Amino acid sequence: MKLLYPTSLRLDVPSLEGFGVSLHPYDVKKHIPEELVDAEVLITWTNTADNLKDAVKRLTKLRWIQSLAAGPNDVLGAGFDPAKIKITTGSGLHDHTVAEHALGLLLLAARRFDEMRDYQLKRQWPGHLGGPQPDRPADRFTSLRGANVVVWGFGNIAKTLTPLLVGLGAKVTGVARSAGVRDGVEVYGEDKLPELLPRADALVMILPGSDSTRHALNADRLRLLPRHAWLVNVGRGTSVDEDALVAALKKGELGGAALDVFETEPLPEPSPLWDAPNVFVSPHAAGGRPQGAEDLIAYNLRRFLAGQDLKNII
Amino acid sequence: MKLLYPTSLRLDVPSLEGFGVSLHPYDVKKHIPEELVDAEVLITWTNTADNLKDAVKRLTKLRWIQSLAAGPNDVLGAGFDPAKIKITTGSGLHDHTVAEHALGLLLLAARRFDEMRDYQLKRQWPGHLGGPQPDRPADRFTSLRGANVVVWGFGNIAKTLTPLLVGLGAKVTGVARSAGVRDGVEVYGEDKLPELLPRADALVMILPGSDSTRHALNADRLRLLPRHAWLVNVGRGTSVDEDALVAALKKGELGGAALDVFETEPLPEPSPLWDAPNVFVSPHAAGGRPQGAEDLIAYNLRRFLAGQDLKNII
Repeated sequence: MKLLYPTSLRLDVPSLEGFGVSLHPYDVKKHIPEELVDAEVLITWTNTADNLKDAVKRLTKLRWIQSLAAGPNDVLGAGFDPAKIKITTGSGLHDHTVAEHALGLLLLAARRFDEMRDYQLKRQWPGHLGGPQPDRPADRFTSLRGANVVVWGFGNIAKTLTPLLVGLGAKVTGVARSAGVRDGVEVYGEDKLPELLPRADALVMILPGSDSTRHALNADRLRLLPRHAWLVNVGRGTSVDEDALVAALKKGELGGAALDVFETEPLPEPSPLWDAPNVFVSPHAAGGRPQGAEDLIAYNLRRFLAGQDLKNII
Repeated sequence: MKLLYPTSLRLDVPSLEGFGVSLHPYDVKKHIPEELVDAEVLITWTNTADNLKDAVKRLTKLRWIQSLAAGPNDVLGAGFDPAKIKITTGSGLHDHTVAEHALGLLLLAARRFDEMRDYQLKRQWPGHLGGPQPDRPADRFTSLRGANVVVWGFGNIAKTLTPLLVGLGAKVTGVARSAGVRDGVEVYGEDKLPELLPRADALVMILPGSDSTRHALNADRLRLLPRHAWLVNVGRGTSVDEDALVAALKKGELGGAALDVFETEPLPEPSPLWDAPNVFVSPHAAGGRPQGAEDLIAYNLRRFLAGQDLKNII
């Protein structure tokens, strides 16, 4: 049995040996070579659409695809059929890196690193951001200590992020499709947003991209946020109505927005987000570095060979 | 007995009542009014040098000064004599805010928020900082996960910062004048710097300002750091030889420096730090917001009245 692994990241290949499966590297930006098209297992990471579309046609013996991306969109988009081929995602491999980036963006917002940088480039000391400061002014988001942080989209990334926020003294409330207590955090349904958003100092969005999350943060919901609240989005750009966001920022109805994802990426040059007031543009940099990929592959490979259920199957 | 409290921050005054002491607000930027010069207790916060120098002469019945600053430099500099007047500092009141800022600067350095901002201002997408990234490249500091962070100056701020770094997956080593294990962290003496600095991905300096810490990070020690390592300084600017730092940065011998403190503040317009490669200038913004000041004042006031030893006495 052949397993194809991508050369688009540095895998510790010896940690995948011992299963009686032959391991073969492949280039995710080219068509799979003829001698490998009888592979039964394909690991994917940043494959081109063309590579995947070609693989759909030519890898006729394929039984399982292990993606290292958080979601299966690229694999499904290429035409692989989950009714015929087991498809498992890399859900969980990006929790740490995305949570770290989200925390960084929250601290950037609270401490206004964006504004400090603008002053630095003019060789000016932003005295209003330093020295003695009012402690927790009611109309500003200046620290995670005592801040109300609403995390919308409460999967594994949120569960990784929450203890970090709590460690810094924030009060965290979750929002998800189904309510309940998860890892000690009260998670509310989206029907409670009208009560939760007006109390938020910061809103962290970690929603996946789908039709049901499109423009989840629309003009009406933006209006519910306090004027000093910051938005941090590390989920998918489509979950925010960017036109409504720009309008809210221009009217001063929102403290600011630190965005890692956008409706169109790279963010087009004409987008008004580039220079809307109090926006920070991060280039979809939160994740992109699977952590513990070998452990997941080896775990699922053993289960695949044993005929057991796979982790992260879609 | 009169206690004078400053109006330079919003104190919860009722939480200081009940001791049989009369509480009087005063303006830290003016001379103390005549009717208050018989005060025996003075709380200070961001007092002007002139206010304090005048108080030395006119508050002849003063027995105790409770500063809310982390150190006693301003009080001592004005001429108050700790042999005659009890002087207590606000040590501990700034641990959380300074630790939060230090964490923010570390994440800025790892995720290169400074560079992202520069691109944003040009309406350019910094694609090299986003998308799929190499995981933990040996020659860059890109995440706190797995990073070796050396914290030089291991007091209460370091003890507050360390669990946050550990929570993000960093390996923390302390450096202080006296070695030992503190709060579970291995703290080495400064004699071990030649072994510790070459392994650091980030160096966080939290040294107090004094003759003995002046230029603690000099050219020789800067040379010990790996070329990819970042410096974060939230202690005192005098602890870093800025000329040597600029030289190291210009030669590419250091990854970068995120600085909250400087040898001269505000950083003068001609300083080469403003536009040295990979420098981020933060305007002494880490602390400046005492947390829990009332608790400390009330605790020490009771002990003062009972003739007991005071907390944070110098």
